[in-house]
Amino acid sequence: MKFDVLFGGVSYEHEISIVSAIALKKVLGDCIGHFIFLDSEHRFYLIPADCMKSKYFTQGAYKKCTEIFLHHGRFAQKSLFGMRTLPAGVVINLIHGADGEDGSMGALLEFYNIPFIGPRIEASVMSFNKALTKLYANARGVKTLDYELLTRQSAPLSRLPYPLILKPARLGSSIGVSVVNEAKDLEYAMDLAFEYDDSIVLECFKSGIKEYNLAGYKIKNGTQSEFRYSIIEEPSKKEMLDFENKYLDFSRTAQVLKADISQALEEQLKQNFAKLYENAFEGALIRCDFFVMDNEVYLNEINPVPGSMANYLFSDFKFALHELAQSLPKKHSININYKYIERIHHVKGK
Amino acid sequence: MKFDVLFGGVSYEHEISIVSAIALKKVLGDCIGHFIFLDSEHRFYLIPADCMKSKYFTQGAYKKCTEIFLHHGRFAQKSLFGMRTLPAGVVINLIHGADGEDGSMGALLEFYNIPFIGPRIEASVMSFNKALTKLYANARGVKTLDYELLTRQSAPLSRLPYPLILKPARLGSSIGVSVVNEAKDLEYAMDLAFEYDDSIVLECFKSGIKEYNLAGYKIKNGTQSEFRYSIIEEPSKKEMLDFENKYLDFSRTAQVLKADISQALEEQLKQNFAKLYENAFEGALIRCDFFVMDNEVYLNEINPVPGSMANYLFSDFKFALHELAQSLPKKHSININYKYIERIHHVKGK
Repeated sequence: MKFDVLFGGVSYEHEISIVSAIALKKVLGDCIGHFIFLDSEHRFYLIPADCMKSKYFTQGAYKKCTEIFLHHGRFAQKSLFGMRTLPAGVVINLIHGADGEDGSMGALLEFYNIPFIGPRIEASVMSFNKALTKLYANARGVKTLDYELLTRQSAPLSRLPYPLILKPARLGSSIGVSVVNEAKDLEYAMDLAFEYDDSIVLECFKSGIKEYNLAGYKIKNGTQSEFRYSIIEEPSKKEMLDFENKYLDFSRTAQVLKADISQALEEQLKQNFAKLYENAFEGALIRCDFFVMDNEVYLNEINPVPGSMANYLFSDFKFALHELAQSLPKKHSININYKYIERIHHVKGK
Repeated sequence: MKFDVLFGGVSYEHEISIVSAIALKKVLGDCIGHFIFLDSEHRFYLIPADCMKSKYFTQGAYKKCTEIFLHHGRFAQKSLFGMRTLPAGVVINLIHGADGEDGSMGALLEFYNIPFIGPRIEASVMSFNKALTKLYANARGVKTLDYELLTRQSAPLSRLPYPLILKPARLGSSIGVSVVNEAKDLEYAMDLAFEYDDSIVLECFKSGIKEYNLAGYKIKNGTQSEFRYSIIEEPSKKEMLDFENKYLDFSRTAQVLKADISQALEEQLKQNFAKLYENAFEGALIRCDFFVMDNEVYLNEINPVPGSMANYLFSDFKFALHELAQSLPKKHSININYKYIERIHHVKGK
């Protein structure tokens, strides 16, 4: 089975998606059938593997590549006799942020019945908007930090104690995020975040908090299903990753060391992961980032398209993708038979 | 301005979408540019206005019509010299249920930058799944009835007092819905609902409860925005609309009478509507169905693509659509300038 890596997208994370795809090329090598680039005009291009260098995109050279189109069952390119479909493969949705994680790609690929690894529409929306993630996690019995939701109509005031952290509700990769130590600086930080979104999530900033990242996915095993977990990582301690560091973070391919935590905490993290994933993220390999305070686990965020697919957390990443590709969810089939219209005509005819 | 009515879709409500489109033809007449039918294979067809009769679809005659395709900025049909786009128009998403209300159409039309009236992705997901609607409404200060969420793993047991009403989480139009009077009948009703969805919402069934429906939308007025509300209707009293009655309900075109309620209750219903709509449903004309008990307002459901667009609740429906079409939301523009990749190359080059 070959994987088609779909990357780019109209998103603030467009560039880190390119970095992410280049990292996957290193890790997956021959398992990749095609690289599919989504450009700033929402056009798809087929990129030859040897062109997968970041400069190829910054200089617009990709526009010379073959444009491809969404088509029933596969992507396709124009040919003399209509459309020629690409050889069968499973798409890996590697578009970070908007387009990839907001439900758009989930919707497009499902609509055209193209098999893919990545979040479906509902799961995308619940993880893309940080305020909705909190509602969702709490409803599933997973704790999150206390928060306030600010809109443009909100006063620059908070009932939460300082320092605070402000995050645009629908962005990843630390873009538009600020830590504010005093009330007088809140308004400026709000203005900054509102450049990116109409809603801001405000939380208490916990300095030196313990953080753990866990990736995983679910496979079907006959009529049963089971979770596959990555190792748990304690991400490198920096007060906050700025965009440039986060950027480099997306190019990771070297395996990391397992966090030194108790068996009990490991179990707790996995249980929280499963509560979040079940009946929502099927078909995706996701990474959940947790906080731990006073032995309690809190969800920080769900990454349904993690940087370079969190390959560095899996001991056999190729196997993981192949296994997941065998367990993609099927849409509930709906039989359209017009029996109601027929019945109404029958009743009217009498 | 012309409207293109998009209807059909792969949904249990496929047939009522056809009925809905035929009703809109009566109401909008010449304001309609095209009828666009989405068939059971996810193919779009251009239907001539005089073929807009339900039998045309049940007998497959529509397949002789021109197939059209999603294209940047407009739908388009194949021509000798590539693709020919349809004349400019605003699409009315009139696909009820899956495809239309689950976020798919919102995603597709936004992705291809085709102007449309209808819910965007996030709003679709929050209103399509009845369990998420409750989380969403409560977070915005709108009450909903107490409930339980059942999955296939749940035991056929409930802490709620009987009679209960079971609803598949993601379906409208009363499909798969049962009222259960005794514990011994719960399991059977669960089986029925699980035929349609993996999640079931269980609520107390309130016989004789007061119901009020209110439709509306938001327009921009310079830098301000304001809500436009329909009249409030007290829907006809039947314990539960079965599919056939609901079906006839979607073909309504006759204006209804205003519910006989106090000014204060009217205000309360409008305030609840606005709380639900703001910062989420922009671009859509939606109908919110409320319950009133002990002078308290409860949300029953949000219909982001109401049957025949709730035309019968507006005194000047054509004006309403034209006004809304002038206030469609714009996507936050994202400038892709590759400055991070350039910076990283610069740093690496040193």
